[in-house]
Amino acid sequence: MELDLPAPHLLFLGDITNPLDAKTAVGLRDWQPERCVGQWRLPGCTVDLGLPDMTPAAAVAAGAKSVLIGVAPLGGALAPSWISPLVDALASGLSIVSGLHQNLEGLPALSRAARAARQQLIDVRVAPENIPLASGQRRTGKRLLTVGTDCCVGKKYTALAFAKALKNRGFPSTFRATGQTGIMIAGGGIPMDAVVSDFIAGAAECLSPNAAEAHWDIIEGQGSLFHPAYAAVTLGLLHGSQPDALLLCHEAGRTAIDEYEAFEIPDLKTCINRYEQAASLTNEVARVVGVSLNTSTLSTEEAKRVCAEVSEQTGLPCLDPMRDDLAPWVAVLT
Amino acid sequence: MELDLPAPHLLFLGDITNPLDAKTAVGLRDWQPERCVGQWRLPGCTVDLGLPDMTPAAAVAAGAKSVLIGVAPLGGALAPSWISPLVDALASGLSIVSGLHQNLEGLPALSRAARAARQQLIDVRVAPENIPLASGQRRTGKRLLTVGTDCCVGKKYTALAFAKALKNRGFPSTFRATGQTGIMIAGGGIPMDAVVSDFIAGAAECLSPNAAEAHWDIIEGQGSLFHPAYAAVTLGLLHGSQPDALLLCHEAGRTAIDEYEAFEIPDLKTCINRYEQAASLTNEVARVVGVSLNTSTLSTEEAKRVCAEVSEQTGLPCLDPMRDDLAPWVAVLT
Repeated sequence: MELDLPAPHLLFLGDITNPLDAKTAVGLRDWQPERCVGQWRLPGCTVDLGLPDMTPAAAVAAGAKSVLIGVAPLGGALAPSWISPLVDALASGLSIVSGLHQNLEGLPALSRAARAARQQLIDVRVAPENIPLASGQRRTGKRLLTVGTDCCVGKKYTALAFAKALKNRGFPSTFRATGQTGIMIAGGGIPMDAVVSDFIAGAAECLSPNAAEAHWDIIEGQGSLFHPAYAAVTLGLLHGSQPDALLLCHEAGRTAIDEYEAFEIPDLKTCINRYEQAASLTNEVARVVGVSLNTSTLSTEEAKRVCAEVSEQTGLPCLDPMRDDLAPWVAVLT
Repeated sequence: MELDLPAPHLLFLGDITNPLDAKTAVGLRDWQPERCVGQWRLPGCTVDLGLPDMTPAAAVAAGAKSVLIGVAPLGGALAPSWISPLVDALASGLSIVSGLHQNLEGLPALSRAARAARQQLIDVRVAPENIPLASGQRRTGKRLLTVGTDCCVGKKYTALAFAKALKNRGFPSTFRATGQTGIMIAGGGIPMDAVVSDFIAGAAECLSPNAAEAHWDIIEGQGSLFHPAYAAVTLGLLHGSQPDALLLCHEAGRTAIDEYEAFEIPDLKTCINRYEQAASLTNEVARVVGVSLNTSTLSTEEAKRVCAEVSEQTGLPCLDPMRDDLAPWVAVLT
C-alpha cells in the first residue's frame, strides 16, 4: 500500500502535556526531518519537539502542504477542542494526515471544510481491501523482522535504523511499515492492527512481496508473543513475514509487560527460543541474529556494560541502534 | 452477543453439488433438529440433508419464520442466481439469516424486498462494536477450549457434544460459539474471524465472562497453531479464553494441513506440548485433558483400535464424540 502524503508537514501536537502521547510526531521528526517544517501547539501544550512553532498560515508560507496529527491520545479520537483549529488549517490550504482510529471523513465539520478548501483528509490507519488469506508459500528475497519482549521497546526504531545502515553500506533493502507512525515515515505499509484477524498473516505476505535474492526487507514488528492482548497480531505478522532473520528488541531493565505487570517477561534466551520456534512454521531457518537494547535510561558507560552482558548471555551481538554503529548486525546478514 | 433468530428455519442449500459446502446446514440439522422444518434446494442442487424438500410458501405453512442460508460458497458471497428466489422467500413472509461475509443489507434487491415484506435480514458474522483490549485478568468459573491439529477436524462438534454431555449429567455448562455455524446453533457468540486483529483476545475474554466457580464454559476453537494462515486467530482465542482445560481435536489419518500440504501436522505429543506452552501465558495450569478423534472415515472396529492407540501414546482419554460415550472426559473435569 503506497501513500502519497502531501509534504512537507506541519506537526500538530494539540494541547497534550505527556511527551509519550507525541510518539508519531517524534517519529516523523527523527526519521523524516526534511519533511517537517515546524510544530503547531495549541494553548496548554507543554510538549516541545524542538522545531519552530508555526501557525498554519506561517507553515503554508514556509511551503507546508499538510498538517500531520502527531499525537495519539487515549482512545484514538480527536479532542473536540481540536476540530475548530483544524478547520482553520484546512481553510489556510493544508491537507490533514492522521493515523488515529477515528475516521476524519466521519467528522462533518472537517469533511465540509476539506471540500470547501479542496484539501485532502488522509487516514493512514485503514487496512487495504481484498487482502487474501496467507498462502504459506515462500517468496524470493530475504526478510528480517524486529520482534519484542514487549510493546514500546524499540521495534520500529530498530527496523528504521537497520534499514538505513544497510542502505548506507550499499546493500539493497526496504523498510516495511506495519503501524501508523511507520507508515507515515515510510509513505506506505499496512496497519496490522486494523486488519481483520483471519487476514493478518495474509497482510504480512502482501507487505513484503517477491524481491531480488540479495534484497532485504526490514519489517517493523508489532506487539510481543508474551503480551496477553497482542500476541495474536505478533504471531500472524511473524508467520506471514516468513523472516530469515529476527532482531529481538528489549528495553534495558524492563521485567514485566507494560501496564500488565502480572505478566513477567521471560529471560532473553527463552524469548529467543520461543520466537525461533514460532517462526519455524513458515521458515525453518529463521534465527534471531541479534538483540536490540533500548538503553535510553542509562548512561553511556552503563549502556556499554549492559550490552556486553547481554551479548555474553545470548551469544548474539547486542547493540542500541540509537547509540551504536550497526556493523556487527550488518556483518551477520551480508 | 445474544441473537434472537426467527425460528424454525427453512435450510437453504442453493444449487450446490459439494456436500462440504453445506457445513452450516448440516450443523443446524445435527444440533438443532427441532428448529429445522425442511430444506430448500434450487434446480441443480445434488446435496441432500435428509429433510423434507419445501418451497418457502410450504415452509411458512409449516410454521417456518426464516430462511437460513446453509451454504458457505467459495468467497463467502451469495450467487447472483440465488437473489431472485430469496426475494420471493421474503415476500412469502420469511426473514433471512446468513453467516456469509457478504452483508445482506448491502444487496439492494434483498433490502428492498425485506422492507416491503417487513422481514428481517440477519447477518450473524458481524463482530460486536466496542470490544475492549484484553486485560489478561483471570475470571471466575472454569473454561475448556477445543483446539485443533488443523481446521475442520471437529472442534465445533466436540465442544457441542461435550457441553451436552456435561449438561445431561447435571453439571452446569455453556457452549460458547466463535464461528457463524456455532453462533446460529447457539443463538449467540462472537464471530472471531470478523474481529479486528488487535481485539481477538479481548473478544475471547468477553465471550466467556465471570461465572459460578463450578460452571464450565465449553468454548468452540478456531483454526490451528500449526496453520500458516490461521494460527494468529487460534492464539488470540487461546489467550483470551484462559482455558483451564483443552481438548485436542484431530482427524484420524490426516498428516498435513488441509489445502496447505507442505505443512506437516506435528505428532500429537508435540501438539499437546505446544498448546499447553501457549496457553500458559494467561493460565499457568492449562492442560490438555483429552484427545478428540474424528474417525468418520473408519469402521467401528478400526475407530476403536485407533482411539486406543492414541490414548496409549498420549496418556489421555481419546474418544470420538460422534461415536463414544464421553464419561471419561467428564470424569477428568468433575
